[in-house]
Amino acid sequence: MKKISSKDNSIVKEAASLNEKKYRDSLGLYLIEGPNLVREYIEFGGRPRFIFLKAGASEEATRIAESSEELTAVYVLSSDAFMKLSSGPSPQGIVAAAEKSNETAASFLAKVKDKNILVLDRLQDPGNVGTLIRNSEAFGFGGVVMIKGSADPYQPKCVRAAAGSIFRHPILFCKDGDEAISLLKAADKTVYSACMNGEVTITKADLRKNTAIVIGNEGNGISDDILSSSIGLSIPMEGHTESLNAAVAGTIIMYESKRQRE
Amino acid sequence: MKKISSKDNSIVKEAASLNEKKYRDSLGLYLIEGPNLVREYIEFGGRPRFIFLKAGASEEATRIAESSEELTAVYVLSSDAFMKLSSGPSPQGIVAAAEKSNETAASFLAKVKDKNILVLDRLQDPGNVGTLIRNSEAFGFGGVVMIKGSADPYQPKCVRAAAGSIFRHPILFCKDGDEAISLLKAADKTVYSACMNGEVTITKADLRKNTAIVIGNEGNGISDDILSSSIGLSIPMEGHTESLNAAVAGTIIMYESKRQRE
Repeated sequence: MKKISSKDNSIVKEAASLNEKKYRDSLGLYLIEGPNLVREYIEFGGRPRFIFLKAGASEEATRIAESSEELTAVYVLSSDAFMKLSSGPSPQGIVAAAEKSNETAASFLAKVKDKNILVLDRLQDPGNVGTLIRNSEAFGFGGVVMIKGSADPYQPKCVRAAAGSIFRHPILFCKDGDEAISLLKAADKTVYSACMNGEVTITKADLRKNTAIVIGNEGNGISDDILSSSIGLSIPMEGHTESLNAAVAGTIIMYESKRQRE
Repeated sequence: MKKISSKDNSIVKEAASLNEKKYRDSLGLYLIEGPNLVREYIEFGGRPRFIFLKAGASEEATRIAESSEELTAVYVLSSDAFMKLSSGPSPQGIVAAAEKSNETAASFLAKVKDKNILVLDRLQDPGNVGTLIRNSEAFGFGGVVMIKGSADPYQPKCVRAAAGSIFRHPILFCKDGDEAISLLKAADKTVYSACMNGEVTITKADLRKNTAIVIGNEGNGISDDILSSSIGLSIPMEGHTESLNAAVAGTIIMYESKRQRE
């Protein structure tokens, strides 16, 4: 394992640039942090582009780094240099650069055949985006379509919230609502928009398979082009409460879909 | 409306102290912020102890403050003084001091008769606590039991996440798991602990009424004294995913309960 002590080292600088979307896009890489996530990525068949271990990191982090030396370049960083990369609330001593998946419309549609799809329409909170990717996998959805304007799922906060699902779960990017709708309808998905006054409640809709569930922006809801080409879907509630958090609403719908299948 | 320009004014200082739990406890008050919440509190029959309007606040905030002059003392604060009170990400020009509800075990049990109860066992994230109080009302639960060690529901972040439910929804504080269990069993509630490997799944359990659903601490789960006196309840999931966020898990269970009732 090579040692790097300067935080101005060019390898450290390149890796730190992955905290910005434009460099994640141009390099096709993103950072994952912590022994659990790095181990999961490798176990899933991923090959980190490089691994950074903090000098004096935990035994677990050190073991993972050492056992990855055949797989990739491993660097031991001074605390200073490591902090340039780490972005979590509590640095966990190991960071790796993972490869972004390169889903095309065709490869995505093949993976989601006969399954449900979650569609995020300019969802902006990174925690919500990550949580929904994770729960989409947990409740048996086939993949997630992200419409431009949504938080980048490869940013550190999303990656943390999505946990290992970010490696495994198919994600497709669309440039706008029209592109998403055309694609979903071509794939014979029934498109539902989750909204307060949707015409169907989730217990009445058949959500077992081949649906696309659209979750809208936290403040502005779902865009008009999607609303006009989809069926409004609501969650029955009572009392004076008005709406649910986007991640909670999306997860309830995905849970209900799984319940109906079983 | 009286004007206050100094942020060292004693009334402003007293109100600002409500950002700390010990003063909320000793004064029996907490701060609510924003026109929607203040209006909702008054419509619900609440009588704010005082209202603070920021000089130059929105028309809506100003209208609420003006129309409350018969009800309580209203102060117009300089921007400086107002910022001592405001804690939200975007100050909304109006803050009021609301009265904490004074639920006793007896009054609480009367309100939750025949209903389900949500129990928060040292849940620490204020956003989770607020969201769960709100969703407990939304899905028809009778009230929330908070075990000591949970985030204070009257802190600003919880109040924001709970929205108006913080005024309306019965909340009872218990000093530990044993006290909560005795109370719940005396009230003939079937106690379920939400956990990964619970022996019953939520679709198999009868959750229509008279249950208590315990949600555990984000890191450590449910305490042993509660686990050993309750039935483990799990949410069916698939894939490699391991667990759900506490607010999401709790809300799914409450949704399932409402679905079963209908």
